[in-house]
Amino acid sequence: MQECAFVDINLILDVVKKQKTHQLGIQDDGSLTRSTGVEVAGTGSPNTVDRWLARTILRVIGAPRIEFVLWDGEPVRVVQGPVIGRLLFHDRRALWAVARSPSMGFGDAYSSGRIEVDGELFDVLVETFKGLMSVRDGRMQKLLKIWPTATRTGGNTLRRAKENIHHHYDLGNEFYRLWLDERMVYTCAYYEQPDFTIEQAQLAKMHHVSRKLALEPGQSVIEAGCGWGSLALHMAEHYGVRVRAFNISAEQVKYARGQAAARGLSERVEFIEDDYRNVTGTADVFVSVGMLEHVGIERFRDLGGVVDRCLARHGRGLIHTIGRTRPTPNNVWMERRIFPGSYAPCLSEMTDIFEPYDISVLDVENLRLHYRNTCLAWLERFEDVAANVTRTYDESFVRAWRLYLAGAAASFDVGNLQLYQVLFAPYGNNDVPWTRHYQYLPRADAHT
Amino acid sequence: MQECAFVDINLILDVVKKQKTHQLGIQDDGSLTRSTGVEVAGTGSPNTVDRWLARTILRVIGAPRIEFVLWDGEPVRVVQGPVIGRLLFHDRRALWAVARSPSMGFGDAYSSGRIEVDGELFDVLVETFKGLMSVRDGRMQKLLKIWPTATRTGGNTLRRAKENIHHHYDLGNEFYRLWLDERMVYTCAYYEQPDFTIEQAQLAKMHHVSRKLALEPGQSVIEAGCGWGSLALHMAEHYGVRVRAFNISAEQVKYARGQAAARGLSERVEFIEDDYRNVTGTADVFVSVGMLEHVGIERFRDLGGVVDRCLARHGRGLIHTIGRTRPTPNNVWMERRIFPGSYAPCLSEMTDIFEPYDISVLDVENLRLHYRNTCLAWLERFEDVAANVTRTYDESFVRAWRLYLAGAAASFDVGNLQLYQVLFAPYGNNDVPWTRHYQYLPRADAHT
Repeated sequence: MQECAFVDINLILDVVKKQKTHQLGIQDDGSLTRSTGVEVAGTGSPNTVDRWLARTILRVIGAPRIEFVLWDGEPVRVVQGPVIGRLLFHDRRALWAVARSPSMGFGDAYSSGRIEVDGELFDVLVETFKGLMSVRDGRMQKLLKIWPTATRTGGNTLRRAKENIHHHYDLGNEFYRLWLDERMVYTCAYYEQPDFTIEQAQLAKMHHVSRKLALEPGQSVIEAGCGWGSLALHMAEHYGVRVRAFNISAEQVKYARGQAAARGLSERVEFIEDDYRNVTGTADVFVSVGMLEHVGIERFRDLGGVVDRCLARHGRGLIHTIGRTRPTPNNVWMERRIFPGSYAPCLSEMTDIFEPYDISVLDVENLRLHYRNTCLAWLERFEDVAANVTRTYDESFVRAWRLYLAGAAASFDVGNLQLYQVLFAPYGNNDVPWTRHYQYLPRADAHT
Repeated sequence: MQECAFVDINLILDVVKKQKTHQLGIQDDGSLTRSTGVEVAGTGSPNTVDRWLARTILRVIGAPRIEFVLWDGEPVRVVQGPVIGRLLFHDRRALWAVARSPSMGFGDAYSSGRIEVDGELFDVLVETFKGLMSVRDGRMQKLLKIWPTATRTGGNTLRRAKENIHHHYDLGNEFYRLWLDERMVYTCAYYEQPDFTIEQAQLAKMHHVSRKLALEPGQSVIEAGCGWGSLALHMAEHYGVRVRAFNISAEQVKYARGQAAARGLSERVEFIEDDYRNVTGTADVFVSVGMLEHVGIERFRDLGGVVDRCLARHGRGLIHTIGRTRPTPNNVWMERRIFPGSYAPCLSEMTDIFEPYDISVLDVENLRLHYRNTCLAWLERFEDVAANVTRTYDESFVRAWRLYLAGAAASFDVGNLQLYQVLFAPYGNNDVPWTRHYQYLPRADAHT
């Protein structure tokens, strides 16, 4: 089996390299933008090479319990016994696009409907990711080298950051309101009890973050990247703090200001449409939930500088971010189609925020499986409104977002993605909680 | 003041560089081993240069509220108002040794009694360290470059590791029994309540570690670096696990085996006199408390390899270590006189254990101030038996250990040292506790 896989990989490398882009109608990044191919991109019945390629892909990705069904309806599989699901390839181009760039090829072909999934998308993706993990070795690396991956985001300029954020977050508040929780929280929830609803879990997350920060009435908070303002408003309302919250998404800031006015919190929460790098003044607390993914690792030191400059010596801070177990390039499809300019850092990369400034890391919590549940909750609600969304956007948009939410859930499930909450304090600050017991007291202890 | 300090630093750099080693009777590392100096190492009354040097040292280290008293009884100070304490320099050599290498010079001169401290040693050290922190900038860096510091420990060979460990841990069980807690725990305690005794806090630490690891009866545990065996015995007795505990200190292993026999735990706890690199087999749990400081950063990847090899895919692990906020050379005196081959890593260095193997970091807790309290408790008990220790060793040994314990306490107090507990699991292990609430349940929930 090992030997067999080795041979297959060399063959596939060879075949893929020899295919001319124009024949396949596939761009370098694996996206499908042309259809001038004649032989391998034709629509004739699957031939021997197609079947061989399908089998080879399945073997290369670790022989998951998945069946490929080609466009003549014939199944291809490399495992015995029951399968988790089936990938229906509706044409040859889809198959070859996957071979050339699994991420872009599958992502775009799935979005356009040229690949459909028979079975639970989440389960199929989990099975596939687990298969890939099982072959993370020297042979797999060869293929990974020719399969395109997004490069790590070195750092976004002020302008580029604004464009990237606009791409995703300015899709329209209406769109997100359809499937997020009532408070419009678009970051990992905290399922304090596993059976929490998404509403309960998002509320628990905001309490969890607030309590970790040991907020006290009257303290000042700087929030970098505040989304639709839910956490800022929560901290002001339940913990009596004053918040200056920064965000470069115009749509979100507008919404957040409306919420502050409606809840009578405008005096205590100021929403500022600006980049984290332009944060001024100082505060007792610095918090950033779900922004670091958009900062880019080459700017981590800048972000640390902002923290160092803005955080009082007696203060505390928290950064909450999607992460990795090791430096890992983005999923290219996710980066191109969903989150331009994003990057999920590992801990060694994150230390660039803290170590240059001797910031003391007090507490790191990994909430990976909570984000799986969050994404699954979002996916479920998204499916409920998919027909609505299709009317506003189109079917391929809905399919792309379904894949994004299910893919993220699967990535958190198998461990491809982590969720780190890092609590920290300036060097030598002894005004820190004595143990973490305070984070787990009954909720009544929170300021109300 | 800024300008003045700048001038002083250039002057001191110049003067120190020009002094010939043989004149000062000071070795390159600042230790005092010769006394052939005539002018500056003489015993005559302090002259103008001596007083200038004393003032300059005080300014360079950030003008702490400390007075130097020279050997003619005249005080030198650079601050107004009350002082925390006084350093009594009994001869010129001591003063110049401090200028040449504050760490070695002060450490050795204090140990030999040529410098005495009038005031609480801990308080004086805290004040001094805080002064040094206040001048951590470009000017200070200049001086730090010519002041000797221990290099980072690149990695200990099997033989060197054994020698280093022998130096410290084989001083004799009797020596440690005099001032450690009754269970002979020589790592950071956990003051679950701030007023705990050291006995209570060490017991709480062992419970805290055991609970973080979610130990279940019948599980197998590998412990790397087990000290006198207290944690291994605790886990077996209170959590029903089987432990294989490794240690290269012959004295400690002998003691631990005796304890296991006395407590009827020999069947469930095996103490093995061997290096962590030779750990064989697999286990449900990997734990290492207070060993990483002796591993050396170039061996961190090897240690990760041991974890990767030995830890079951469904397992969990914990590493507990003294650390830093950024890569920092050792205190040269501590490294030479107390802990040869030791190094306290920062988090970016520690990730070398985890990231090459995709080990998922679940939870990091910083117990810095708990180690301050631990060291202060040890110091108090050490003082109670100092007369005993002097009889077995000598006065300079007692003074060196007093400085070590007070210096460690002060370093934890001001933030020069951190204490990290890192809980982790193999990639993709979903059999991890859902939240950390389980770590904070009433103790009755622990297996007894």
